[in-house]
Amino acid sequence: MRVGVLTGGGDCPGLNAVIRAIVRKGVQEYGYDFTGFRDGWRGPLEGRTVPLDIPAVRGILPRGGTILGSSRTNPLQAEDGVRRVRENLAGQDIDALIAIGGEDTLGVAATLYEEHGLPCVGVPKTIDNDLSGTDFTFGFDTAVNIATEAIDRLHTTAESHMRVLVCEVMGRHAGWIALHSGLAGGANVILIPEHRFDLDEVCGWITSRFEAAYAPIVVVAEGAMPREGEMVLKDESHDSFGHVRLSGVGEWLAKQIERRTGKEARTTVLGHVQRGGTPSAFDRWLATRFGLHAIDCVHEGDFGKMVALQGTRIVRIPISEATARLKTVDPELYAEAGVFFG
Amino acid sequence: MRVGVLTGGGDCPGLNAVIRAIVRKGVQEYGYDFTGFRDGWRGPLEGRTVPLDIPAVRGILPRGGTILGSSRTNPLQAEDGVRRVRENLAGQDIDALIAIGGEDTLGVAATLYEEHGLPCVGVPKTIDNDLSGTDFTFGFDTAVNIATEAIDRLHTTAESHMRVLVCEVMGRHAGWIALHSGLAGGANVILIPEHRFDLDEVCGWITSRFEAAYAPIVVVAEGAMPREGEMVLKDESHDSFGHVRLSGVGEWLAKQIERRTGKEARTTVLGHVQRGGTPSAFDRWLATRFGLHAIDCVHEGDFGKMVALQGTRIVRIPISEATARLKTVDPELYAEAGVFFG
Amino acid sequence: MRVGVLTGGGDCPGLNAVIRAIVRKGVQEYGYDFTGFRDGWRGPLEGRTVPLDIPAVRGILPRGGTILGSSRTNPLQAEDGVRRVRENLAGQDIDALIAIGGEDTLGVAATLYEEHGLPCVGVPKTIDNDLSGTDFTFGFDTAVNIATEAIDRLHTTAESHMRVLVCEVMGRHAGWIALHSGLAGGANVILIPEHRFDLDEVCGWITSRFEAAYAPIVVVAEGAMPREGEMVLKDESHDSFGHVRLSGVGEWLAKQIERRTGKEARTTVLGHVQRGGTPSAFDRWLATRFGLHAIDCVHEGDFGKMVALQGTRIVRIPISEATARLKTVDPELYAEAGVFFG
Amino acid sequence: MRVGVLTGGGDCPGLNAVIRAIVRKGVQEYGYDFTGFRDGWRGPLEGRTVPLDIPAVRGILPRGGTILGSSRTNPLQAEDGVRRVRENLAGQDIDALIAIGGEDTLGVAATLYEEHGLPCVGVPKTIDNDLSGTDFTFGFDTAVNIATEAIDRLHTTAESHMRVLVCEVMGRHAGWIALHSGLAGGANVILIPEHRFDLDEVCGWITSRFEAAYAPIVVVAEGAMPREGEMVLKDESHDSFGHVRLSGVGEWLAKQIERRTGKEARTTVLGHVQRGGTPSAFDRWLATRFGLHAIDCVHEGDFGKMVALQGTRIVRIPISEATARLKTVDPELYAEAGVFFG
Repeated sequence: MRVGVLTGGGDCPGLNAVIRAIVRKGVQEYGYDFTGFRDGWRGPLEGRTVPLDIPAVRGILPRGGTILGSSRTNPLQAEDGVRRVRENLAGQDIDALIAIGGEDTLGVAATLYEEHGLPCVGVPKTIDNDLSGTDFTFGFDTAVNIATEAIDRLHTTAESHMRVLVCEVMGRHAGWIALHSGLAGGANVILIPEHRFDLDEVCGWITSRFEAAYAPIVVVAEGAMPREGEMVLKDESHDSFGHVRLSGVGEWLAKQIERRTGKEARTTVLGHVQRGGTPSAFDRWLATRFGLHAIDCVHEGDFGKMVALQGTRIVRIPISEATARLKTVDPELYAEAGVFFG
Repeated sequence: MRVGVLTGGGDCPGLNAVIRAIVRKGVQEYGYDFTGFRDGWRGPLEGRTVPLDIPAVRGILPRGGTILGSSRTNPLQAEDGVRRVRENLAGQDIDALIAIGGEDTLGVAATLYEEHGLPCVGVPKTIDNDLSGTDFTFGFDTAVNIATEAIDRLHTTAESHMRVLVCEVMGRHAGWIALHSGLAGGANVILIPEHRFDLDEVCGWITSRFEAAYAPIVVVAEGAMPREGEMVLKDESHDSFGHVRLSGVGEWLAKQIERRTGKEARTTVLGHVQRGGTPSAFDRWLATRFGLHAIDCVHEGDFGKMVALQGTRIVRIPISEATARLKTVDPELYAEAGVFFG
Repeated sequence: MRVGVLTGGGDCPGLNAVIRAIVRKGVQEYGYDFTGFRDGWRGPLEGRTVPLDIPAVRGILPRGGTILGSSRTNPLQAEDGVRRVRENLAGQDIDALIAIGGEDTLGVAATLYEEHGLPCVGVPKTIDNDLSGTDFTFGFDTAVNIATEAIDRLHTTAESHMRVLVCEVMGRHAGWIALHSGLAGGANVILIPEHRFDLDEVCGWITSRFEAAYAPIVVVAEGAMPREGEMVLKDESHDSFGHVRLSGVGEWLAKQIERRTGKEARTTVLGHVQRGGTPSAFDRWLATRFGLHAIDCVHEGDFGKMVALQGTRIVRIPISEATARLKTVDPELYAEAGVFFG
Repeated sequence: MRVGVLTGGGDCPGLNAVIRAIVRKGVQEYGYDFTGFRDGWRGPLEGRTVPLDIPAVRGILPRGGTILGSSRTNPLQAEDGVRRVRENLAGQDIDALIAIGGEDTLGVAATLYEEHGLPCVGVPKTIDNDLSGTDFTFGFDTAVNIATEAIDRLHTTAESHMRVLVCEVMGRHAGWIALHSGLAGGANVILIPEHRFDLDEVCGWITSRFEAAYAPIVVVAEGAMPREGEMVLKDESHDSFGHVRLSGVGEWLAKQIERRTGKEARTTVLGHVQRGGTPSAFDRWLATRFGLHAIDCVHEGDFGKMVALQGTRIVRIPISEATARLKTVDPELYAEAGVFFG
């Protein structure tokens, strides 16, 4: 029995922990052989492989990134893609394929399984925590810890200079990182893509915060949007030459706040540091358990399934179900945080 | 409406986050007044109080410990305890009491509510994660992160000297910290109180690890016990004068391993560093949500309940149910980790 | 004897540690009273004070920022500034003034001492480490640790996607943070303000790095400049509307690298997180010792002096000497790092 | 030209950074070949080698421990040791040998150079910072950071329970780690081997601390000793059977404090976590520079020398000078910290 493994999409702390768990249990308990496919679906598409055995996974548990590399290649959009994938899998004598990735990577796995009968198992991966069917995805806890530590640091700077500090975190379509790190970091305003914000209200919170002799921290997801919409971001931001400028929402927000409240405001865009480096203990634990259960799926011939966390148990759900819709922040949950605004 | 708050038992990162959330929502949303009781149940028993309002909870979110102090005082075992508690609550015009604590502290709350009609709400707290009815308790994630970071550090020392390193972590009755940090830290042996260990088997794992040119890490919960039982710990450990010596299981284990495998072994006892300091982002998020929901219980007059995490939702369960039995590590869950032993 | 204390300029981890040490030793050993001046030189200028005694400094050692607030107010440029400062100091019965700050703040202290006879003592503070006369300033080590941890995280992202990652760190006029964090983080290119960089050479290093199957990390100080000069930064950067755009050097660099090498490049601008939060152990130790020696200066009537670190000893040098010229990175020291480029 | 490298003594964060810098500069700038000797002086003594080239040092900069392994083997005490070392070096065509280690490892290098003409260069390594001739050794800053973080955590536990917390840190003969982490962590008592402590005085500080409503933290170096001497440690410590017991000074101290002050006291022994894991930015910077300068010594034929940090410069001193006497804490420096006691 030979099992292929690939990692697709943006990198995420915990990928290596999944790979290690799959290989350790697969080799030691089930006697399987493994083939690593390089750079996501590009691996099976182009027949790019790397050896994957016990020595290859030594020492990778605490390391961020993925030893298999990653890409956003979609074989379904490549010419003759399905046939090429099928041939390359056959050429490597692959009996089952474990795909670790987000919506796109798993969507491919779902299609290959359902429409083409390829024996795929999915492991959910997204720093943004926006995949349905699982309480959490690994990588998310690490990102939230990094963002929270940054917010902790920004507090002291804000207080010393009585400035507004805007911290832009990841989350293009879902505000999970903003919500969790904002709550954990004691932010005074949290803005998420699921809820268009009202600039007057935001400035009101900021002003009332200053009146209480605090310096406010605003945590904003990169995908958050003012009520007035995207055009506003373009129209009201100019550089020193008077030219229009497209900036991130964080920078735009700081300028608007300065203009309307008369207070100094600064922006920090956390960016890629949120997705790299050693995973938190929670993410290593979750990723390891995902790996152990994914290889069990293979062992039981339970294909077309994705492993998921529900409570403290690892369960299996159809991959297609998990990728059917984005898991966004519930309005009620967002409202719960509102008591800390202002 | 005046609400009393107390924290009992061993300290735990996240206690202050609970207190802050209770007060912020209680004051801002419900217009309540608060009284802080000092040092757990000793506060209501002896009428020891501290002011508790918005300024008092400023800046405490990221701080470990508890601004209310703690103790293990049990008013049910004090002479005339219930009457004194009742009188002191009445004397302070307390309409409801929120008790934040573990098995013992909450057990008192359950009895006071069920047998004496006192309007109590419980918030679960234990670093050991061994309370029933809740997926996790705050403080646990912080402890696991600290232990995992320590294990990461021990790996490099073990490899450089090709030594066994034994890391003793908290967990007198339940092995959750050992299991999670052992999995996250890549331990080669994990020993928990729920499963008596066989010394020969342990030494076998260690020997096979060295044969694979690795240096083994053993994570042992302080309450883990060899198959031969507690007497062995006493009988086989002697100091340099030849006298019997009661040591922790970690130190005992290192000596046994040295004797049986001929390899050098060293022990690190993590101790109190696991329970102090700034909480992880997860623990701040969980503790904050527990606080918000606890004050909602008070607002709705839903007494005798404890807030709990189930999946990603905060639910309410009878306090008595949560304290009825210890939540220990399931044999199946422990077996799952076995693939990494040896 | 009453001593005034102020903190000026950008905030910096360790300011509170200095204040605490001054007050602890001043009160306990010399029996002094203290007055805190708020917001840098604005405090003495406008007579803004806060109480400063043992309770006020309790628990502030590990906290970033400054309990005294800060500003960039320069009393020498305010109308009648010197007279107002002198009167406010007299009004508060101040016998000596300790100014903690960078070039600007200390420059004022030097002038007030030398030209107006005010009894000032200086404590050097700059995250950038660019003050002369002292081996290191506190805050610098914390900033370097934060930047290094970020670079560690960026490595795994770079490797997983085989991308260039550009990390822009603080340092407008001096490249100390870039040099130290770049060396500590294993960067493949380090660019500093003291040495204009050649874009072709930078791209050559990057290409050769990819040829060796590595993903390169570029650490660039915010004040680093291409050989072609500042105009280039303006001219070659356009937004999606085709308009000119002023961006930081980090973003500009990533675009140039993409254009010239054909490799994907991403930028992270660390920004304010470098200067906030809890100080490293080194910075707490240095800041504490600076505070202890500053109050000794006052005790000995040794005014016009700044405390400084030379080797492991704290010495005193004239403030004017320290602020006379910026301490920049020596070309030889920069050359030493060159072996790791490319 | 072929250069041998070995690492001896206890492991220390930064060893790998030294090795990497030596190899990177040696290969790229000077065109040297390298041989790694395994396990300290045991390598040359028994002819145990490992390949050492650019690929071998890839990615090791942030990793603790040493890829070369370590031991305390002393070839001068082995039968025919010098001859065997000489023969093995000749057998490997070694033209120069770089020894990275502490007093013992470097002492061997000094003797081999001075009495036997072997071309040795030394790099100082000790977590304890007790080597003469250098302001700091790498590993020390990491250990101090780890100890300080632990002390930060212990504070919150101590405050919550109003307990004494004793933290035992490394330092058998010198109190550098205790002094630096004690100052940085805000300890109320710091005890070092260089100054025998008076138990009454210690208990006085603790009592006065409680009177000020604080919970005291005691930082004690493992080699600190009461005025009454070592016998006291043996005589007054008994286990629950009434038997004499040899414990560490930390545990002994906690018992004495409990007995004399009536306050609860707990001990944490940090142990091996202080010496493992990823090095701090300072240690990586220092270790890297030591490595670069050590290979320069080889290149210039400047043997019998050890690289050292003086201020911010790397200098060279005779190895024999550095190992002639231990660098202990100066009484004056210790007295400086006294203002924080009690």
